[in-house]
Amino acid sequence: MNEPVDTRTRLLDAARRLFAERGYMGTSIKAITDAAGANLGAVTYHFKTKDALYDAVVRSLTEPLVATVEDALRSGGAPIDRIEAALRAYSEYMHTREEVPSLLLQELALNRPILTPIRETIGPLLRGIASVIAEGQRDGSIVAGDPLLLTISTMSQSAFLVVMRRPVNEIAGVNMLDATMRRRMVDHIVTIVRRGLVVVNGGRS
Amino acid sequence: MNEPVDTRTRLLDAARRLFAERGYMGTSIKAITDAAGANLGAVTYHFKTKDALYDAVVRSLTEPLVATVEDALRSGGAPIDRIEAALRAYSEYMHTREEVPSLLLQELALNRPILTPIRETIGPLLRGIASVIAEGQRDGSIVAGDPLLLTISTMSQSAFLVVMRRPVNEIAGVNMLDATMRRRMVDHIVTIVRRGLVVVNGGRS
Repeated sequence: MNEPVDTRTRLLDAARRLFAERGYMGTSIKAITDAAGANLGAVTYHFKTKDALYDAVVRSLTEPLVATVEDALRSGGAPIDRIEAALRAYSEYMHTREEVPSLLLQELALNRPILTPIRETIGPLLRGIASVIAEGQRDGSIVAGDPLLLTISTMSQSAFLVVMRRPVNEIAGVNMLDATMRRRMVDHIVTIVRRGLVVVNGGRS
Repeated sequence: MNEPVDTRTRLLDAARRLFAERGYMGTSIKAITDAAGANLGAVTYHFKTKDALYDAVVRSLTEPLVATVEDALRSGGAPIDRIEAALRAYSEYMHTREEVPSLLLQELALNRPILTPIRETIGPLLRGIASVIAEGQRDGSIVAGDPLLLTISTMSQSAFLVVMRRPVNEIAGVNMLDATMRRRMVDHIVTIVRRGLVVVNGGRS
């Protein structure tokens, strides 16, 4: 028998789904507590404010992302293999979390400063990847260039497909929700990224 | 002395700015005609509906984009050089049109089918790039692979920086509105894309 899910987790799950479907403004605290089967005071009790609940929802998505990418970066092997592992972990996470594109797009469309939970998680994630790229540059296996720009190049193809999932599917017929297509696209991106980063035999680049 | 700008153009310019700032729902026809210095009936006279005006705004941004990229694709030279020219033209256009990221993000956040004017312009643009990639594959200068996926890889780094302009600046300090930074980033992307696409001397890839 499963342990009953605690109220805090039920609130977080309901809020993540509703914020993604209806936006922050379009989601009332009552809608969240109703969906979670909790009483109206539960949000205040567990999170204090709706704002703080929203931050907790964002963290509930960014923290596991950072954890899985950092695991991959520590996975051992040559720097380029750890970068590949990080890119695959990132892609798998981002493309299989239904709520991520909606929440990300809403956040971007709001045109306000980046939320603290995003900055505090994604900043270190980028720096972690950049440091593995720098390690590969020191051992001569990865091409020269600003490690941060190389990091942006490395992650941007997959990140682009997260935010542009719908138009890419409707205009180019590439459906990232289809596991076979996703695997094919990610394999393709890995090939392109490796070509972009790896120093060709004999030091030619 | 300049020719006075015609009413239709003034309406289009005002609508583009206001839709980008306040969104489609947040922009009244009266706000547009006031900003354009036109009478309240002018939108109906020139565009019939607010919806049709919005479509015209989208086309006013996508059609010059397609024209500049198609010019670049026809610019002559090896396929990879025409791809580079197309990527640079695309990047320069997308990163210097203030309204593009806001309108694009709003459109994406609405979570509705892609608008006809976007589909009718961006679809052919992608197929145009893919056909130059296929040309390079036939003459042996561009690596094997699905031309459409290679096209997505080619354009996605720059496109990612359009939609993610704000977080990339706030989290990674890469400000694409700064002309020097933009040039540096686009040069970097061109290097990575060429590495990804070009067959290395002697057929090694």
